[in-house]
Order: sequence, then structure tokens, then C-alpha cells
Amino acid sequence: MSSISITGVGAYLPRNMIANADLPPLDTPLDPSEIERIGVARRGWASESEGIAEMAAEAARVALGRAKLPASALDLIVLSNWTQRRYIPEFAPRLQALLGAPGSVAFDMCCACAGFLYGVGLAHSFLTSGRFERALVVGSETTSKRARPGSKGTLILGDAAGAMVLEREAGRGGRLIDYELATRGEHHGIMDISADGWVRTHIAQDELNRLAGRSIADIAARLLLRNRLTLEDIDWIVPHSGTAGVQRAVADALGVSPQKVLTNYAQVGNVSSASIPTALQQFIGEGKIKPGELILSAAVGTGWYAAGALYTT
Amino acid sequence: MSSISITGVGAYLPRNMIANADLPPLDTPLDPSEIERIGVARRGWASESEGIAEMAAEAARVALGRAKLPASALDLIVLSNWTQRRYIPEFAPRLQALLGAPGSVAFDMCCACAGFLYGVGLAHSFLTSGRFERALVVGSETTSKRARPGSKGTLILGDAAGAMVLEREAGRGGRLIDYELATRGEHHGIMDISADGWVRTHIAQDELNRLAGRSIADIAARLLLRNRLTLEDIDWIVPHSGTAGVQRAVADALGVSPQKVLTNYAQVGNVSSASIPTALQQFIGEGKIKPGELILSAAVGTGWYAAGALYTT
Repeated sequence: MSSISITGVGAYLPRNMIANADLPPLDTPLDPSEIERIGVARRGWASESEGIAEMAAEAARVALGRAKLPASALDLIVLSNWTQRRYIPEFAPRLQALLGAPGSVAFDMCCACAGFLYGVGLAHSFLTSGRFERALVVGSETTSKRARPGSKGTLILGDAAGAMVLEREAGRGGRLIDYELATRGEHHGIMDISADGWVRTHIAQDELNRLAGRSIADIAARLLLRNRLTLEDIDWIVPHSGTAGVQRAVADALGVSPQKVLTNYAQVGNVSSASIPTALQQFIGEGKIKPGELILSAAVGTGWYAAGALYTT
Repeated sequence: MSSISITGVGAYLPRNMIANADLPPLDTPLDPSEIERIGVARRGWASESEGIAEMAAEAARVALGRAKLPASALDLIVLSNWTQRRYIPEFAPRLQALLGAPGSVAFDMCCACAGFLYGVGLAHSFLTSGRFERALVVGSETTSKRARPGSKGTLILGDAAGAMVLEREAGRGGRLIDYELATRGEHHGIMDISADGWVRTHIAQDELNRLAGRSIADIAARLLLRNRLTLEDIDWIVPHSGTAGVQRAVADALGVSPQKVLTNYAQVGNVSSASIPTALQQFIGEGKIKPGELILSAAVGTGWYAAGALYTT
């Protein structure tokens, strides 16, 4: 149990949001029922000026504004991203400079689609250990750049950034009650990236969906058990969206009503590690998620990673 | 102050260690005095089978052996590497599978040459927060692959892996007394990697050396002040080696005798984030570092990062 406050959430979507009708033609045209089954209506395509650090900074500024905290007050910045990779320099120091947070420690994480929740776990540990007081965790992804042009992935993969401000004993905002992380290296080879930079899956899609469902159910069970809660106590499940197939597998594995599951998948596509904070921003903004309501978030990522968090906003 | 024990250190060097006489010719031949000034006598070149995860596993097995700990007892694995980069999957889950540590959380860090000490800081925070009991931190680098063939960098950059086992309140081994991390995003652009994958430096070498010296002196000052120590209390300084120029700048900035500074730079070259644990393994093995002696390690990395740790082994 911790006394970590969640004092701000923010998101950024690219200026260029592409509706299905405006997508470039696919190698193999899909009929309307298949497009409906995929379930994404639009997705963002980041421009040259909307890089990982730049989108992260936009999302972070919204989150810091909600937290009423100047960037200069930050002690820790964790930036998750797997869709742009460099040797050196990484993106977090650039984000630090863009925000103006010179006193902070800033570093990058990957952990694929589970990166945001891994970052939340890291922030929790640094805050709980007493070393830092105020942390920013951002997921910023240009997932669209990992879809082969002409492939079905161009319908599904989108770009976005989402951010969360966490503070030790802030006495305001929501509360990060607990988190859970898991790594399953035995599934290391199930997905990778081609030499051209495109996502490839090496197992059947339904097998991947089942693995995602099992992993998330396991993480949820551990979090609930440790906190003496049941799924009945949870107001909202805000999972990493993945694909429609993953969402069905997760709902099946957890055995919850689809009404309890909130994602922004239809509006933004699969934005990888940015999915949870961008969904939070949307549903808090719409008044759907209310202060004090208990939220369970969970994500899986190729590696294989699983992660979860239990919190209020 | 913490009660984190350091129970094992290990290292791995590639089978293929290249002496100066066996290096491929440089674009511009160097005279012997210049080669002596550079200061590296041999360096490892990893083979195809000596990947980031494979070298890390070898170093980890040595460290776990010293710690008398089975890999299956690990809760946390942090793997630092910047010299091989992939989108997905990353290397830490593969390391987890190679070691047989299925109950652990495993993820990758970069932070360039400061990656190992950033990993130590992360492990400290997870152990201190109470979440985990036993952590493995590994730096594994194929730095030679980032040197343009024919460039002077081929003399300097080498491959290696080094590992450390940290345990909460183990009641044996050395003690991780404190750590310090810093990030300076304003120096983001001073080095990068060309499209071909080679290191490029965009400031003058002596300016880079001075920045490294200042950064390490600052980290050391913060660690010493917080722990009410002076440099006189430190038995050994085991820094990231960098280059001979960086080493001189660090010794100048700290104002310590070169006899107090231990690096394995001449024997392995600049092995980036593997430099500190591989040096520890060597100097502990030689009996130079004795149990209970107080060690200050510090590193800088392009990003710009700085990190330090105060410990006994």
C-alpha cells in the first residue's frame, strides 16, 4: 500500500487524424464488414515536427497543468516509447529540456505496449523509496510508422502521447493504490520487427489474443488479491486497447461486462504505450470517469511483458 | 541510507580479444606514441553467438555464483545496453529466459555509458520500496560495433558484460550505501550515431572531457556531502573509463591521486556500461579491492547522464 497521489493526466493527438475514407489503399481491399470488425474509425499520423519527445512534451504540459505543477518541480521523468529507437541520444533528456525540468532525472523505457504501466511501477518505486517527490510518466508512440504501407496494420496503428503526474503524499488528486509487473521471456520470439521496420507476428492471432487475455487476467488477479478486492469493487477497467480481438479476449478472461471496459481504440487506434493515459484523459474529460472511482488498468507488450495498476483519478 | 547488500559481481569478455598488432589497418595510420597515448592494449570483439543477452547471461552466472543465489530466486533483472538497439523484443526478457528466472520482472535500460549505474539506482529504489528482494543489474555492450571500420574508435571501443547481484538486507557481502543520478538534457546534441551506426561527436574532445569531469565531480560531491564523507574516506574510485582523456579530466576534477583510480581500460578498452562491473570483477579477483573497502563509482553517458554509487564489495 502506498500514498502516491495521481495529480494530473494529459494527452496529445497528432494534428493529422486520418478517417478510414482517407486512408491510402490497402494491398488487399477490405469489405466494409471487415473494417467494422477491426473497429478503428480514425488514427493519428504524426508529422515530422511531432516526434516522440515533442508529442510527449505536449501531453506532459496538459498533465502538469492539471496537477498545477511547474515542470521545474519535477524530480523524475520516465518516457516510454518503442516505436522510434535510437542508439544515442535517447528521447527523455530532450523531453526534459523541452519542458524545462533541469533538476529531474530523465530516462527512457521501452517494454512495448506495457511501457506506460512499467513506467508507473518505476515511478512508484522511486517515490516510495523516498528518493523523489514528483514524477512524470509519459507514453509517446508513433506506432503508425511500424505498419507496412498497404498492410491492414495501417488501419489499426496510430500515434499519440499520454502523460501522468504522480506525487508522494500530495493530499490531492487520485491515489495510485498498487501496481504489478511481470515478464515472460519464454514468449520472447512471438513478434518482432522486419528489417524494414514493420511489425511481424509469428504466432496465430487467436493464440496471441489468448496469451494477452491470460496475462491480463493473471495481473488483475494478483492486484485484486493483494488489495482484498474483487472485480465487483472496480468501477472501470481501462486496459491497453491492443486490437478488438485482444479486447474481447481480455473481457472474456476477466469475465466482465463490456460496459465496464473503457478504451479510445475506435477514436485513435492502437497507440501502444500511450493508450491508457490518452483514454483516461478522454473519459475523465467526458465526465465518464469521476473522481474517486476505482480503476484497474492492465497492459501486455511484446517481450513478453504484463503490467497493471489500481488507482483513482 | 539503505540496507542493500551487494552479494556478487561477475564479468564476461568475448573469446576474441584483439591486441593492437592484430587490429585491421586504420584509414590514417597512428604512430606508436599516439597509440600509447590512447592507452588501450586489447579489446574484445563479440562473435555472432556473443549477443547482448548471451554475454549478459555469462556475466550474470558468475555474479549469481558468487552470491550463491540460483537465478530462479531473482525478483528483478535490469539490463543496460545502448550498442544494439531493437524495436521489439528487447534483450532483458531473453536474458531472463537464458538464466531461468521466470518469477522476475526484467526490462532494458539504455542511458548510454551511465546505464549500469542507472540500473543500480533503479534496483536500489525497487529494493528499498519493499517490492523486491533480489535484483540483478547487468551492463552488456558490443561497443566495437559502433566504431566506423578504419577509424581511431576501433582501437578504443570494446565488447564486454558485467553484472552485480543486489539483495535487500542479505546480512552478507558488501553494502550499497547510496547512489545518485542526474540528467542534463541541455547537452542532448553533443554526440549521436550516424545512419551507418557509427559514433559521432559534435563538440571538441577537450570540451567533452571537461563536461565529463565536471559532471562526475558534481555527482561525487553530492554523494560525499549526503553521506558526510570526504574523498579521503574513499579507498578506491572505480569510474566508467571512457577514454584516457576523460580519465585525466575526472582525476583533475576530483583532485585525487591516479593510484586511487582503478579502471580496466588498458585491458578491455571502452566497454561503455559494462566498464564498472568488469573492472570490479578484475580488481576484486586480483585482491586489489578488499572486502569492506569504500568504493566510489561514477559514470557519464551521452544523453547527457551522470550517475554515481557509494559501496563496499
